[in-house]
Amino acid sequence: MNWNIAAPDGALAAAIGRKIDTKTKPLGALGQLEALARQVALVQQTLAPALHRPHVLVFAADHGIARAGVSQYPPEVTHQMVRNFAQGGAAINVFCRQNGLGLTIVDAGVRGSFADLPAVRDEKIAEGTQNFAEGPAMTAAQCADALARGARLADERHAAGGNVLGVGEMGIGNTSAAAVLMHVLTNRPLAACVGRGTGLDATGLARKLAVLTQAVGAHPGLDAADPLAVLATFGGFEIAQMAGALLRAAERRMLLLIDGFIASAALLVAARLAPEILAYCVFCHESDEQGHRLLLAELGGRPLLRLGLRLGEGTGCALAYPLVQAAVGFLNEMASFESAGVSGEKD
Amino acid sequence: MNWNIAAPDGALAAAIGRKIDTKTKPLGALGQLEALARQVALVQQTLAPALHRPHVLVFAADHGIARAGVSQYPPEVTHQMVRNFAQGGAAINVFCRQNGLGLTIVDAGVRGSFADLPAVRDEKIAEGTQNFAEGPAMTAAQCADALARGARLADERHAAGGNVLGVGEMGIGNTSAAAVLMHVLTNRPLAACVGRGTGLDATGLARKLAVLTQAVGAHPGLDAADPLAVLATFGGFEIAQMAGALLRAAERRMLLLIDGFIASAALLVAARLAPEILAYCVFCHESDEQGHRLLLAELGGRPLLRLGLRLGEGTGCALAYPLVQAAVGFLNEMASFESAGVSGEKD
Repeated sequence: MNWNIAAPDGALAAAIGRKIDTKTKPLGALGQLEALARQVALVQQTLAPALHRPHVLVFAADHGIARAGVSQYPPEVTHQMVRNFAQGGAAINVFCRQNGLGLTIVDAGVRGSFADLPAVRDEKIAEGTQNFAEGPAMTAAQCADALARGARLADERHAAGGNVLGVGEMGIGNTSAAAVLMHVLTNRPLAACVGRGTGLDATGLARKLAVLTQAVGAHPGLDAADPLAVLATFGGFEIAQMAGALLRAAERRMLLLIDGFIASAALLVAARLAPEILAYCVFCHESDEQGHRLLLAELGGRPLLRLGLRLGEGTGCALAYPLVQAAVGFLNEMASFESAGVSGEKD
Repeated sequence: MNWNIAAPDGALAAAIGRKIDTKTKPLGALGQLEALARQVALVQQTLAPALHRPHVLVFAADHGIARAGVSQYPPEVTHQMVRNFAQGGAAINVFCRQNGLGLTIVDAGVRGSFADLPAVRDEKIAEGTQNFAEGPAMTAAQCADALARGARLADERHAAGGNVLGVGEMGIGNTSAAAVLMHVLTNRPLAACVGRGTGLDATGLARKLAVLTQAVGAHPGLDAADPLAVLATFGGFEIAQMAGALLRAAERRMLLLIDGFIASAALLVAARLAPEILAYCVFCHESDEQGHRLLLAELGGRPLLRLGLRLGEGTGCALAYPLVQAAVGFLNEMASFESAGVSGEKD
């Protein structure tokens, strides 16, 4: 699959800067919101951007590696939490309702059926990945299928008139998958990429690092310059579907809301396939998961929120979205010094 | 004036903690939002807090010290910006509209009339303060009047059914007043309290520091243990009215939204009069104004946002408010492990 993402044309940048700088406020006084307004205007190629039908896709899947004792929670929690999402009881439900974002729950590869829950979108590749401590997590065909399914979901949001897409995830064991993807694709030490996930103590963290060190060692021939092979070897179906959704949404020039550590790992894979994607990304928060700060630096991302969140589900996207609205709002609605009759700086 | 602020009864803390910890998320995974939920529940003394009629009071006033060349903008900008507020064109208008907060613009002591703008609330003490480089900024009677007028505005919001109050300000020269208040009340070096305000360059900053150093020296007999005397000597009418509003609102057990450097200086004065006020404060953001970080540390405040804002007007309150809603929302609306049938941590 080829991805054709165009970097936004920078020709408009000067005019956007002028519009921001003539608003009734000291130069630069809205800080990071000004950079965000600039970005959204460039992505949409207009001085008057607008946000339509913001939506969060939450991809859920199980991980073979979860059976190796890398998480604080048993693997069946993935299935249980998808039920919770479908019933509206999770944090992402609360925050999407509050801030006016749409929400779709996607079964990308959870063990067990959701046939009784029509609200759960069935994009199941398999009943969880294989344990990558023993072999590749998925086949190349499964990986391609996952990317294509994610892309199709982004297409649907675009066709529905949306121009803002957030991605989130649920999958017991997926901080392990994300950490290994980060390690292999960035060559950072595995110990800097592995964190406490849902809340491991020091002993649990040491065990997780040992399991993952051994698992990485089990794939000696892997070419780090082949992101798809790395994704297939260590990824999860939810991570691969997120990557596909992000890539297609950027092709469609949608604004991308990036959540925490695992979503950022999916973006890392996507950015290795098509680096231009980064111009479309709003980094919603810096997670408390060790590794995320470094991963953000690797991606050149400056997070909007630093609240010590480590929940995933796309919660950072939903919580940061009002700041994106604020950036667009001030650009469109604030008076200029001239229109308001306010004096500028002294000479 | 005596202020009777009761520290919230902590008896409910354990039950609030249990409610938070049984929500369908790993322990602590909502980070700072969990601490915020705990605080709001304690302030309201209930396991099911609710936010009613959130409102921002923006107090505007002129400062005699502005004539000493401490700002990048001419003093008439205070008047002009109040007109801009009244016409809905400023950043605070945009953000309050977006996030559903009410807004009242208060003329606490601006030079010039707003008789043609009935939306501007007339609480004018005088046409700006005196230049504190030459004498006290205001008389003790003016200071008491300002506190009382601020308190009355808070009473009105409470009587209207509001339980969330933010304060913001506009006043050319008021980072100078705030910096000196901070210096005198905390005994921190003046150079650590003085910043670039609306955007001074290095030369302007040096000049501002020199002017303020001399001004502080002109009041050798001042007793730092007498917050009202310090406020009267260096404060602004907007700062004094903010302090009065915050004190009364805390008496009424309202949740207080604290904006940037100047609002925090008003809170510092308030906290020296009644330290229990701090339990009611949500620190909305850490400003880019040098001094604010230190002032937050002095107040024990942990900011929700760090976006490099330095605009004032209450913009930080309006921007952070959705996070307060999110904290209350997850506490009230999320399912528990038991109700959702989700497994907890492994033993």
